[in-house]
Amino acid sequence: MISLSDQGFRGISVAEFFYRNRQMAGFGNPTQAVYSTVRELVENSLDACEDAQVLPKVDVTLTQTPNGSVTITVRDNGPGIPYEFVPEAFGRVLFGSKYDLRQKRGTFGLGVTMAVLYGQLTTNQPVSVVTRYGTAPARSFDIYIDIETNSPVVERTAPCPSHLVGTEVSLTIEGDLKRATPRVREYLRLTSVSTPHALIILSMNDLPRETFGGYSEHIPRPPVIVKPHPRSADVEHLRRLMADHESMSLRTFLVETFQKCGTRTATRFLQFLALSPTRKVSSLSRDEIVRFSAALRNYDGFDRPDDQCLSPIGKEPILDALSELYASSFFKYELRGPFEWQGHPSILEGALVIVNRQMDENPVLYRFANRVPLLYDARDDVLTQAVRKVNWTRYGVNNNTQVLLFVNLCSTRIPYKAAGKQSIAGVSVIESEALLLFKSLGRAINKVSSRAERTRRNRRKMREFLRQFKIIAKFAALLADEESPDITALIHSLFEVDDRD
Amino acid sequence: MISLSDQGFRGISVAEFFYRNRQMAGFGNPTQAVYSTVRELVENSLDACEDAQVLPKVDVTLTQTPNGSVTITVRDNGPGIPYEFVPEAFGRVLFGSKYDLRQKRGTFGLGVTMAVLYGQLTTNQPVSVVTRYGTAPARSFDIYIDIETNSPVVERTAPCPSHLVGTEVSLTIEGDLKRATPRVREYLRLTSVSTPHALIILSMNDLPRETFGGYSEHIPRPPVIVKPHPRSADVEHLRRLMADHESMSLRTFLVETFQKCGTRTATRFLQFLALSPTRKVSSLSRDEIVRFSAALRNYDGFDRPDDQCLSPIGKEPILDALSELYASSFFKYELRGPFEWQGHPSILEGALVIVNRQMDENPVLYRFANRVPLLYDARDDVLTQAVRKVNWTRYGVNNNTQVLLFVNLCSTRIPYKAAGKQSIAGVSVIESEALLLFKSLGRAINKVSSRAERTRRNRRKMREFLRQFKIIAKFAALLADEESPDITALIHSLFEVDDRD
Repeated sequence: MISLSDQGFRGISVAEFFYRNRQMAGFGNPTQAVYSTVRELVENSLDACEDAQVLPKVDVTLTQTPNGSVTITVRDNGPGIPYEFVPEAFGRVLFGSKYDLRQKRGTFGLGVTMAVLYGQLTTNQPVSVVTRYGTAPARSFDIYIDIETNSPVVERTAPCPSHLVGTEVSLTIEGDLKRATPRVREYLRLTSVSTPHALIILSMNDLPRETFGGYSEHIPRPPVIVKPHPRSADVEHLRRLMADHESMSLRTFLVETFQKCGTRTATRFLQFLALSPTRKVSSLSRDEIVRFSAALRNYDGFDRPDDQCLSPIGKEPILDALSELYASSFFKYELRGPFEWQGHPSILEGALVIVNRQMDENPVLYRFANRVPLLYDARDDVLTQAVRKVNWTRYGVNNNTQVLLFVNLCSTRIPYKAAGKQSIAGVSVIESEALLLFKSLGRAINKVSSRAERTRRNRRKMREFLRQFKIIAKFAALLADEESPDITALIHSLFEVDDRD
Repeated sequence: MISLSDQGFRGISVAEFFYRNRQMAGFGNPTQAVYSTVRELVENSLDACEDAQVLPKVDVTLTQTPNGSVTITVRDNGPGIPYEFVPEAFGRVLFGSKYDLRQKRGTFGLGVTMAVLYGQLTTNQPVSVVTRYGTAPARSFDIYIDIETNSPVVERTAPCPSHLVGTEVSLTIEGDLKRATPRVREYLRLTSVSTPHALIILSMNDLPRETFGGYSEHIPRPPVIVKPHPRSADVEHLRRLMADHESMSLRTFLVETFQKCGTRTATRFLQFLALSPTRKVSSLSRDEIVRFSAALRNYDGFDRPDDQCLSPIGKEPILDALSELYASSFFKYELRGPFEWQGHPSILEGALVIVNRQMDENPVLYRFANRVPLLYDARDDVLTQAVRKVNWTRYGVNNNTQVLLFVNLCSTRIPYKAAGKQSIAGVSVIESEALLLFKSLGRAINKVSSRAERTRRNRRKMREFLRQFKIIAKFAALLADEESPDITALIHSLFEVDDRD
């Protein structure tokens, strides 16, 4: 028993934090760990390929070993990783290339290092990386993480000239492949909806290969890094921006630093704040900076954000993908935005499909964030909550119309509830945009379902009329003492309906 | 527009991570921020007082300022904080005194620093701390966080001899006091259930003070720091333990390092692994360490964990508190455990109250983790999911029996889904223990409600009989040509019932 007085204050590294709380990062159990590892590696591959404007081809290989571990290998045809960054990219938590202001799947520099960490602590195996960058021959690396200091330990590195293109990452983790398989398949199937131009090939143990996606040859234009929107300037952000532009006048600072802020807007804004446009940035007091920040966040006169930093799936690509996956005659697409939450440019897009098969819920919601399918923790997600607030029966959703909803939130920052990136937090502007999106998709069902209802009603009337018509014909024949005529052909030609349905 | 080639690899500090993703830590919007700040400060005060075996008295003062910020001050009668640790405890994310193996409310060294960070970036105000530790005069500190480097900046510190006891922390954050008030009250009300010995006094603006708790004078025994349970020895943990005990024999290492592992258990375990008990720890190869770790986690022969490190609320205290809060004649308490999840000693305790007032849900679940009420993100919580899996109508829960459930998970580590500590992840052993707890509480309702049902049935029969008896008496009187007698008194004395009910 250790005595109480031994306890003391100390700091821990962020790697230690996520080691202790790995369930927060999507590594809570061996099933989820397999899914999360596949997901993180595939997302990095897709991001890398799209950055380099290469049509992504990603091979995912999963092998269960007899002792309860799973080897996961993901190989892409991307541009590779600069060799000097490989150790930290895989061996240091919160290190990455994804901190700039544009839409990316990855965000934190956390996911892959979590997979490495999880592999290390369950099987004690390093991550193995082979990558070819530029014209030099490829290199391989075996990397561990020193969890206590959050730094990479390169156990082995060597040239690997036989590896010609892209990056291959291999990890061995404690995992339950059998239980994870449905999740992995679902993830890849939904990825083919949000990234229809990528071809993903899954090989599991000795099963036949499965392919996902490859529905389009069109690589989306890469999102462009933009200047921050004025509404994102909380005191900390503003202070940093000001520190970089101390000698500028306030007006020039506004115009140079922010998007959607030309000279006219800047002048008007400074007038509103009663600050001289020619005052130096460095002359602002702390209280003035607080006031300046509050004003930037609340001023009405800034335009909607620039959406060049975003890459929504788009109408044609998503509907192409959905019609590959679903036999349906009804598809509908809507897009809302750009809007901003706390200054982060955002778009919400949704597709609606009506299918024949009945499911447990109606509508069924498939959530995506920056094209990434979200499979866990749906109930507390803001999109789920918005779906619940819509009275779908009002839009004609009933037992005859099973609705599938595919909703993708694009943003330079997704307000995930946890580092595992499964659930979107309740930001009010996102919720209200989602409500508007759902309602507008709902109205489309209403149209089609009221048309369907009308058709059904007309058919019913027609059938009734035909029944009477046959009886009359029969009676008439009886009265005339004739055989009942076969009037089916007559009916068909007269009314263009099938009286048997 | 910044060109793409400007993007590069870099690391960010953990403070920067949570600054960018503050919704993950419970600071997603101004309402939640007020609640989270109160919660973090109150929890630290309660932990501090209980450590020092002081009956906690905590003053919470909330003041809305006209410009949309809220000043939150929490003052306790605890032992104070050693002055040399104050800057880092408030100005460095992931620094704390709560990393040892025993139950505490706080866990990460994250909550209070998040509140400081949030205050700083919304109002640019430092946290103000006054604390008295030991016999020296108290000291005050004004502290900011350097977010980019995750380190404290002490703006001002001075002796403060007028402050005689405990710690007072004051923060000014952007916040919506009006909307946060119901949450804060609910949090304090539920805290009085889980910590009935604490007295918490809430002062808001100019409203009259409210007090919560103070239902008991009994301070629970402080949880004791214990040695780790063998099942917690993942490869990383085991490697660290072995590094500290390299020269020991394997048997001595097991006995010295782990709880519930005496010489006999250690010998049997090593036999099972086919390792010599006298082999040196340092002689194990990497593969042997992996095998050793897997065996520790899967071996059946270890006892249930030591629960001295835990501090459940307990039957008497929670029922005392609940009977202060609810006018009910039915209370029931159950405790399950100790059990362990991934080697973390845990207890699940629950209390059930039947109330008269009908509510939206039945049963209503109030979740607690290490005595902390959890108010947000209930839907994806493992306890909520367990409640849903129970068929409550089978236990007689219906419109006549509104049930309230209070469930507290005690553990040396709570598997929170996110750093905001609102929702418990789906760990299967916790879910199955919760199911057993709920069922055993359910059976208690069944007993009481079937007794109630029986009583109701008997009364109905008796009333019917009495009605007939009166008619017979009337007829008999008629036949005898007498006045109908008043037989009420007779009935009462014969049957001991009130015929009017």
